Amino acid sequence: MEKNIAVIKGDGIGPEIVEEAMKVLDAVANKYSHKFNYTQILMGGASIDAHGVPLTDEALEIAKNSDSVLLGSIGGDTTTSPWYKLEPNLRPEAGLLKIRKELGLFANLRPAVLYDELKGACPLKEELTEGGFDMMIMRELTGGLYFGKRSTKEENGELVAHDAMSYSETEIRRIAKRAFDIAMKRNKKVTSVDKANVIDTSRLWRKVVSEVAKDYPEVTLEHMLVDNCAMQLVKDPKQFDVILTENMFGDILSDEASMVTGSIGMLSSASLREDKFGMYEPSHGSAPDIAGKNIANPIATILSAAMMLRYSFDLDQEAKDIEEAIEKVLKQGYRTADIMSENKTIVGTKEMGDLIVANL
Amino acid sequence: MEKNIAVIKGDGIGPEIVEEAMKVLDAVANKYSHKFNYTQILMGGASIDAHGVPLTDEALEIAKNSDSVLLGSIGGDTTTSPWYKLEPNLRPEAGLLKIRKELGLFANLRPAVLYDELKGACPLKEELTEGGFDMMIMRELTGGLYFGKRSTKEENGELVAHDAMSYSETEIRRIAKRAFDIAMKRNKKVTSVDKANVIDTSRLWRKVVSEVAKDYPEVTLEHMLVDNCAMQLVKDPKQFDVILTENMFGDILSDEASMVTGSIGMLSSASLREDKFGMYEPSHGSAPDIAGKNIANPIATILSAAMMLRYSFDLDQEAKDIEEAIEKVLKQGYRTADIMSENKTIVGTKEMGDLIVANL
Ligand SMILES: CC(C)[C@H](C(=O)O)[C@@H](O)C(=O)O
Ligand SMILES: CC(C)[C@H](C(=O)O)[C@@H](O)C(=O)O
Repeated sequence: MEKNIAVIKGDGIGPEIVEEAMKVLDAVANKYSHKFNYTQILMGGASIDAHGVPLTDEALEIAKNSDSVLLGSIGGDTTTSPWYKLEPNLRPEAGLLKIRKELGLFANLRPAVLYDELKGACPLKEELTEGGFDMMIMRELTGGLYFGKRSTKEENGELVAHDAMSYSETEIRRIAKRAFDIAMKRNKKVTSVDKANVIDTSRLWRKVVSEVAKDYPEVTLEHMLVDNCAMQLVKDPKQFDVILTENMFGDILSDEASMVTGSIGMLSSASLREDKFGMYEPSHGSAPDIAGKNIANPIATILSAAMMLRYSFDLDQEAKDIEEAIEKVLKQGYRTADIMSENKTIVGTKEMGDLIVANL
Repeated sequence: MEKNIAVIKGDGIGPEIVEEAMKVLDAVANKYSHKFNYTQILMGGASIDAHGVPLTDEALEIAKNSDSVLLGSIGGDTTTSPWYKLEPNLRPEAGLLKIRKELGLFANLRPAVLYDELKGACPLKEELTEGGFDMMIMRELTGGLYFGKRSTKEENGELVAHDAMSYSETEIRRIAKRAFDIAMKRNKKVTSVDKANVIDTSRLWRKVVSEVAKDYPEVTLEHMLVDNCAMQLVKDPKQFDVILTENMFGDILSDEASMVTGSIGMLSSASLREDKFGMYEPSHGSAPDIAGKNIANPIATILSAAMMLRYSFDLDQEAKDIEEAIEKVLKQGYRTADIMSENKTIVGTKEMGDLIVANL
């Protein structure tokens, strides 16, 4: 199989961790006689520095014409980096929002898994996480407050800021279907999260999700208010299988869930549209403070590459190989600094990549 | 001192827990020769049952003309209660939103405290909470998505739902001032939470909060993105003193923080405007499943009554008396079911109220 992958190394630790993911992808390609062609494009701070904008039309075009996108991380320190002196629509994040929208990546999948080998890092008491947990957060990614009309204008002698939130039945239905499809391959439970006791978008959300559920009689659907979900993630994370929610709630809840695992350096993500195309990136940020020091954990990015093999290229066995290699390396006791614990062997970014390749 | 208190017992466990709070208020009045006059009004489900609407104009008028409002809890089971078959603006929550708006209660204070005696109930590992934590979440309560224009209408052959979010400089400034004032009496740190990398209301929020901060040189201001805050509450709750945020983010984060304490049955809240007037209610809900069984924990409501004495009536010593009585009762080993642990003595709602009175 031959595939064209657009690669966005990004800012901060992005370049280092993407290097390792490419190394692992190449090793898999070698083992199974596939060919992955990489075209590097710029986005975020790196693009601002080179072109004055966080994403050029040319870069976007290359992404559009590829089979998938592999992304490191973008952005810098929001208080010290000059990127954050620019107009909001010229800052690094604007590139990310634009590529999501332009590529139509409405379905964001963020697994939050407690790895047996890393449960020591979980901030929750052991009795709450016995047996581990494994949930998939399905976040709508191209609607809601993120892409509504906004303005800040003078009204009656003072500034007033406005953001608009909207969802159509189509937007809700397509992400809901995706969530139920994924639940069918997992533990057949969907928790749809909204604030239906207050806002209209949530009431429509609840209605459409309930309709979609009828086509999946084997899947249990439960509705949960967002404030309650924020509590339940801390109180009893084991109760969740697939969490389905809109863009802003998904941003907040997926980060909360990732912290509940205690190992955010291990969490991958995929952003998909209706066909096989997708963008894959770690759940964590660009960590500018540790950039270029060969200490960042590349595993989340490598797991994102594995998701790419599974979701975009249908290479299930290849994806499994990567996931198993990572588990082996963890069992062998190797850790990057962020997941280090007593009696384990600390390794750098590159070494971790090499170890995973060696275990493939 | 003589004060007129409007009392809303509400639904579910509301009536039982409010009874105990009134018992404690009367005991304090007796001790210090104050007089509290109570006028009961209906809101939520109880009002729907009696009048067909969740809050009548007459009830609102009584609340407006009182010196403060004591509230139990409102609402029922959203999937089984007939109240939730009604139009959204006739449901129990609509009464709550209306009274907040009509009384101008823009500043919602929600303490999240780890009680030494109850730290066993905290879901976080002990090393994360050593020494306890004590934060105050200051949530804007009359703006944002909760009170924006909403609609659901047919557009191009399908339903589209819209919610509007807006904040003016005035709205942000008054809650920010309140947060800094409170920080001055606490540990002099304000964490302002927003999503300034995406929405305009958050960018204006950050700007105005930074301006207000200039008048409080002793207070450290830090800005944090809402997704990061959702993580930090789990990872390191001790870092927070006052968290200042808008309505929807505050709803989510305050519930998350309350669960991090592990004892939501202990958490009070106050909703204030510029003058001394306020509405006081527990942070928890109406728990219809345990209503009328004399097992609900009345402490959050009693602590809310103490907040009323402090914030609305300037009765600091009286408030302290109540808080100390509660700590004594906990030290003596008495617990309601929700906070019960090994070797403690379980008591009912009424007994807990009596014990607190006895320790005053
Ligand atoms: C960088 C930011 C715009 C982005 C978001 O809020 O979507 C990030 O937090 C994420 O979750 O991918
Ligand atoms: C009942 C509901 C409308 C309310 C809110 O969201 O404000 C509640 O969750 C709260 O936090 O007081």
